[in-house]
Amino acid sequence: MKLALDTSQTAGSIALWENGQTLYSACFNISVTHSETLMPQLDAALDFCNRQPADLEAVYLGNGPGSFTGLRIGLATAKGIAYGLKIPLRVFSSLQLSALQRHQCGKNILAVADAKMRELYAALYDENLNELVPPGVWEPEALLDWKLDNPYFVGSGAKLAQSLFEEKGIPCTPVLAQPLDASGLFHLAQLFPEDEAYNFEELAALEPFYLRESTAQVRAKSKL
Amino acid sequence: MKLALDTSQTAGSIALWENGQTLYSACFNISVTHSETLMPQLDAALDFCNRQPADLEAVYLGNGPGSFTGLRIGLATAKGIAYGLKIPLRVFSSLQLSALQRHQCGKNILAVADAKMRELYAALYDENLNELVPPGVWEPEALLDWKLDNPYFVGSGAKLAQSLFEEKGIPCTPVLAQPLDASGLFHLAQLFPEDEAYNFEELAALEPFYLRESTAQVRAKSKL
Repeated sequence: MKLALDTSQTAGSIALWENGQTLYSACFNISVTHSETLMPQLDAALDFCNRQPADLEAVYLGNGPGSFTGLRIGLATAKGIAYGLKIPLRVFSSLQLSALQRHQCGKNILAVADAKMRELYAALYDENLNELVPPGVWEPEALLDWKLDNPYFVGSGAKLAQSLFEEKGIPCTPVLAQPLDASGLFHLAQLFPEDEAYNFEELAALEPFYLRESTAQVRAKSKL
Repeated sequence: MKLALDTSQTAGSIALWENGQTLYSACFNISVTHSETLMPQLDAALDFCNRQPADLEAVYLGNGPGSFTGLRIGLATAKGIAYGLKIPLRVFSSLQLSALQRHQCGKNILAVADAKMRELYAALYDENLNELVPPGVWEPEALLDWKLDNPYFVGSGAKLAQSLFEEKGIPCTPVLAQPLDASGLFHLAQLFPEDEAYNFEELAALEPFYLRESTAQVRAKSKL
């Protein structure tokens, strides 16, 4: 059995996978922090499936970009489980995870996450989820300069980006807003197979995909 | 807050919706019956969201086609909650719910659910989820005669239908297998708005979308 997690956005998600299919998945968009919800959700999921943590064979994590604290909680939890059970941890871009919603739908996919402070995390994928523009942090207006051929707009920042494009009369294809679903990480792992093995040094060295410094870091530097 | 349920397939799903977004959703594909899992899942969902059953304002149900027992459990539960709280119950086709996965993706959508006994439930939708061919029960080979223009294949029966089409060299567009997600019912309700009001007579008269008689009914008749 494998576990998938994503807490990069306000909404979090966990999923369990076995025998080539999703056994359990949950998305929770509740106004308490991931630190309070993630472990109880995971424990309830294992309990519903009548399983133990020791049954886990691998952990997949949506590692951002996204909320600083959310990413830290997700990665720390995933590392802790992988370390405790000596099982592999594989990390994926949370933007690629959101792009999965329009996998093989005939057009490029612009994955956009709300980065707060009037900025967006954005990446562009082809319909097979190959990266055309790597994840970066952008002012919304800057996206208007990308050479986009009417892509699908997905992710928590899609609505904002979309309204900007529509204002300028640039065609875009809206997608119904859905919370990130961690079970998509199992599909990503199959679409982009890699050797999975437990390696302490690699595990310890893993960092979240922040893409920018935290507000606290910026403030601290401005005081130097 | 609104509740959505679908127990038409082996995998079940529940979701909660508030202020125009999914608050919580869960899909569970575990080998115990819906009668054992549905109420605990619902209770846990409300609990995670720090809510009470009395907070529910409407119930949306994926009402089949699908498993006889699953449909009975889903409808009975939904009716019970609607009756208890005197709130509206709206039912949707579970095939249309599965088609939502490819809403506005540029092509028609063939929604197929495994009907067991070598049959499939199938319906065809345009990209806006308008019904082109209503839900029916079919032998898989019969689908080859449908005039299909390389549609998306979605639902629990998609893999079977797809392999049949590929065998005959008829193009089809596979979609990654995902369990039905009840939170899609909230989107369907917005795409196809209707007045929602509590009405005891209508509630009492609601039946599952069976499309065929149960094996038990067929056997009983054959003994007449």
